[in-house]
Amino acid sequence: MAAALCCGLLDYKTEKFALTRNRRVGLLHRLLQLAVLGYLLGWVLVVRRGYQDTDAAPHVSVITKMKGVSVTRSKDASSRLWDAVDYASPPQGENVLFLVTNFIATAKQAQGTCPESPSVLDGMCTEDVDCPVGNPVVHGNGIKTGKCVMFNATHSTCEIYGWCPVENNTLPRKPLLAEAENFTLFIKNTVNFTKFNFSKGNTLQTNDPTYFKSCTYDPFFNPSCPVFRIGDVVEAAGETFGDLALLGGSISIRIEWNCDLDQPTARCQPQYSFILVDRRYNFRTASYYWDSQRRPYRSLMKLYGIRFDISVHGQATVVCDLVLLYLDTKADFYWKEKFEEAKPPKGKTEAAADPQWADQDIRNAQ
Amino acid sequence: MAAALCCGLLDYKTEKFALTRNRRVGLLHRLLQLAVLGYLLGWVLVVRRGYQDTDAAPHVSVITKMKGVSVTRSKDASSRLWDAVDYASPPQGENVLFLVTNFIATAKQAQGTCPESPSVLDGMCTEDVDCPVGNPVVHGNGIKTGKCVMFNATHSTCEIYGWCPVENNTLPRKPLLAEAENFTLFIKNTVNFTKFNFSKGNTLQTNDPTYFKSCTYDPFFNPSCPVFRIGDVVEAAGETFGDLALLGGSISIRIEWNCDLDQPTARCQPQYSFILVDRRYNFRTASYYWDSQRRPYRSLMKLYGIRFDISVHGQATVVCDLVLLYLDTKADFYWKEKFEEAKPPKGKTEAAADPQWADQDIRNAQ
Amino acid sequence: MAAALCCGLLDYKTEKFALTRNRRVGLLHRLLQLAVLGYLLGWVLVVRRGYQDTDAAPHVSVITKMKGVSVTRSKDASSRLWDAVDYASPPQGENVLFLVTNFIATAKQAQGTCPESPSVLDGMCTEDVDCPVGNPVVHGNGIKTGKCVMFNATHSTCEIYGWCPVENNTLPRKPLLAEAENFTLFIKNTVNFTKFNFSKGNTLQTNDPTYFKSCTYDPFFNPSCPVFRIGDVVEAAGETFGDLALLGGSISIRIEWNCDLDQPTARCQPQYSFILVDRRYNFRTASYYWDSQRRPYRSLMKLYGIRFDISVHGQATVVCDLVLLYLDTKADFYWKEKFEEAKPPKGKTEAAADPQWADQDIRNAQ
Repeated sequence: MAAALCCGLLDYKTEKFALTRNRRVGLLHRLLQLAVLGYLLGWVLVVRRGYQDTDAAPHVSVITKMKGVSVTRSKDASSRLWDAVDYASPPQGENVLFLVTNFIATAKQAQGTCPESPSVLDGMCTEDVDCPVGNPVVHGNGIKTGKCVMFNATHSTCEIYGWCPVENNTLPRKPLLAEAENFTLFIKNTVNFTKFNFSKGNTLQTNDPTYFKSCTYDPFFNPSCPVFRIGDVVEAAGETFGDLALLGGSISIRIEWNCDLDQPTARCQPQYSFILVDRRYNFRTASYYWDSQRRPYRSLMKLYGIRFDISVHGQATVVCDLVLLYLDTKADFYWKEKFEEAKPPKGKTEAAADPQWADQDIRNAQ
Repeated sequence: MAAALCCGLLDYKTEKFALTRNRRVGLLHRLLQLAVLGYLLGWVLVVRRGYQDTDAAPHVSVITKMKGVSVTRSKDASSRLWDAVDYASPPQGENVLFLVTNFIATAKQAQGTCPESPSVLDGMCTEDVDCPVGNPVVHGNGIKTGKCVMFNATHSTCEIYGWCPVENNTLPRKPLLAEAENFTLFIKNTVNFTKFNFSKGNTLQTNDPTYFKSCTYDPFFNPSCPVFRIGDVVEAAGETFGDLALLGGSISIRIEWNCDLDQPTARCQPQYSFILVDRRYNFRTASYYWDSQRRPYRSLMKLYGIRFDISVHGQATVVCDLVLLYLDTKADFYWKEKFEEAKPPKGKTEAAADPQWADQDIRNAQ
Repeated sequence: MAAALCCGLLDYKTEKFALTRNRRVGLLHRLLQLAVLGYLLGWVLVVRRGYQDTDAAPHVSVITKMKGVSVTRSKDASSRLWDAVDYASPPQGENVLFLVTNFIATAKQAQGTCPESPSVLDGMCTEDVDCPVGNPVVHGNGIKTGKCVMFNATHSTCEIYGWCPVENNTLPRKPLLAEAENFTLFIKNTVNFTKFNFSKGNTLQTNDPTYFKSCTYDPFFNPSCPVFRIGDVVEAAGETFGDLALLGGSISIRIEWNCDLDQPTARCQPQYSFILVDRRYNFRTASYYWDSQRRPYRSLMKLYGIRFDISVHGQATVVCDLVLLYLDTKADFYWKEKFEEAKPPKGKTEAAADPQWADQDIRNAQ
């Protein structure tokens, strides 16, 4: 039995073939093989780019800057000018930035006791027992002192210990910085595909120093000017500036890089898209100061405005040389094609037609 | 020879077959083929989802807001109320935000000369020669003036030119903002899978305006409420608030989106996880002001507290139609299955059994 | 016909074989099969790591802190000391941070009227008609009042309403914070590969509390010290600190993690690279205050300096067990190898040599 096995193990089997010297059939046979070869070259290489390598995780840097001035008039008709330092934050110009379009100012807050705002549900009261001493007002501005006091002729609210007076939450009916529509946002974006050691920016390479001071982005006429008019951005996001400016909002600015590095790099250009994320956006900030008696004060601002989130994605592709191919997940495509080409013309000694071989070729190829 | 080659080139070889009209063997043969077909349909399509397309790089936007008030009492028993404006920074509510839980305040610093803090090694001295004039104190607060002076009864340190007096680095033994445990953090997160033009937020779509004011996140009972109690977050990260609040810490909040867009979108829900990154976190900040003589002053704060890093990852998958398939890297799975189905019932003229064809089929499939 | 089809359907065809009991040929045949098996084991598994699973989207946290002090001397020879609180922003220490190296201070701005700066093209005028009232000065500092006034002996500009006086844009010829070259930047970076539940930081695990106070990063001698000297970073980016400090600049710090989790985790170390993104960088910020008559003032600073963008990428790989393999996109490699091994020694009943089977095996393998 063992002998049989060993013999069986070392037997070699080959198929018997019938050979037909029929040019027509033979021609057809070769044409079929050409079709396969064509398929591989055409489909695999040209359409599916099986020979390319990809880097989909670029290192990204975004720098932003706003420009423009606007005048606001407060109730007492006193006017105030706002420049970028006043309305843009944070000042560094990062990939998330904010433009003030409306605000509620509470000028001179000091720590003390005062009636809670009637806009806070938990602050309403009819008698002192409604204001348990020491409890914070839920979603309110301070700690209850235990007294229920008159806020105004119509409302009475719990007295609180906190920053007094509390914010008066009546928002101007029209955005105070309506002119912000004409402000401009400069976005400088650089992507670096480390895998291919390839870097590119979104700013036009120009020698004209005044170019970026005069141009404005337009998807068709001026796609490589990185200066965006705020009004245009809001419209591109499907909103009207006036509506968004009143209560604020959040807009996502997306920059997509899809670069075929086999093409001239001038073809490697970013695509911008503008999406409205949210219809309301505001936050509070304060500047602190001390009077001559060293008493601490703060000037509270509730800022409504447009928040811009800039996010960058991209991928770059490049031709692989043979070395790359061995490490490239798409190597198999190349291999197949290679194998087809390398196939010797078939003759009587049809080694390559043996299924074993065929399998091996295919396995090599994966 | 050339003739031989040409002839060899155009010969057509076919195998000789023995045909056995044996239903049992034949049936077995077909069953085996069905098994393969079943494997392809079941395994490749159902389990490995070879027919799906994936987008793993969503555009993400995160907006945060903290709420709550707390009272602190300083050594001189004067109390001070902290609201979100005071303890949260930066005010814009980005994906990295900070909550003050403890602090060292140095009230009225002015530029001048004073003894360096004894906590700085390089600041200690016994005589003037230990304080070479003009040298900065390594990891210290100023430039040495060349004098060695008494800091207090027990220590003498180099006199420095800098912001004076230097910070007194004795931290309160218990966190000053212990109530911060009950503050809430609102996280509004939107993901957009541009490849499929699909957008979703983590906030419940509700018409109840008070919902987000009343609910609190709970992984089981309230997973779609994006309002997180700080104490719960710290516990979920495996810490107790009291410990972390004293010296501060850093917590990473991770939001994972894994959406099968073939399912109802209601199934596409984020998963939150909370990981403790670091057990100490603090930084210094100052507000600057000028007295009546226009002398510059600053009020320095060393802030200890909890820093939240919110990071979002996700992927979406969707069924591909035939067009997609051609561009889909998983197309081969579909192709195989297709090929199996398309196979004609085998008869005497066994074209499909010729290894050449087999190869082609497999190549088509890649 | 139907009968013929049915019969054809259930026929079983097998090939006729010529059996050669030739040990030499048989041995060669087996050797070829071994070669294939060797290829699969060696190439697919060892070189292409077909058995590994990858996580290329780690959750990342970055915390930064600057240290160092420097003295600046203004025109009136009054000296001022800068510490990290003064020159670093934002204070929280995020992945984008800024170091002041030069600045233009405009001390006491109040809202009012004054001549526009002659550096603004649109602000120049020869008579009042050049200054249409109510128009903002393009890229300027305010709204035109309609008057054309003398700015100085040589220039006359439009009078504007805005923050007055306007910024004097003469930058010191040498950076005011030249010593910033010796400041240090501490970067604490943690990556978490959630797929493998693996976390690692860039800071050396040490029990020596003074280590991070004394060490400085060096790619060769001290690669695991996360304290970077600013001057070294600038040089690594191919710039000299002096040049960059004058007008500012932007440097991208990239941290790459490539971890084979089959290796000891000590081998999993980050790679740092420093790239110069931009040769100019500045922004304006202001601190606001009020005088005794409650008039608002601001102290404007135009800050030039170095902006650091820290970005982190990484991937981790790990051996798959069989369960993983079924979900692993590289499973096919394993399958092939498996199939080869499982192949029974070939004997007279050569099922596996039937092309149908061969195809199936290959299909199983995908």
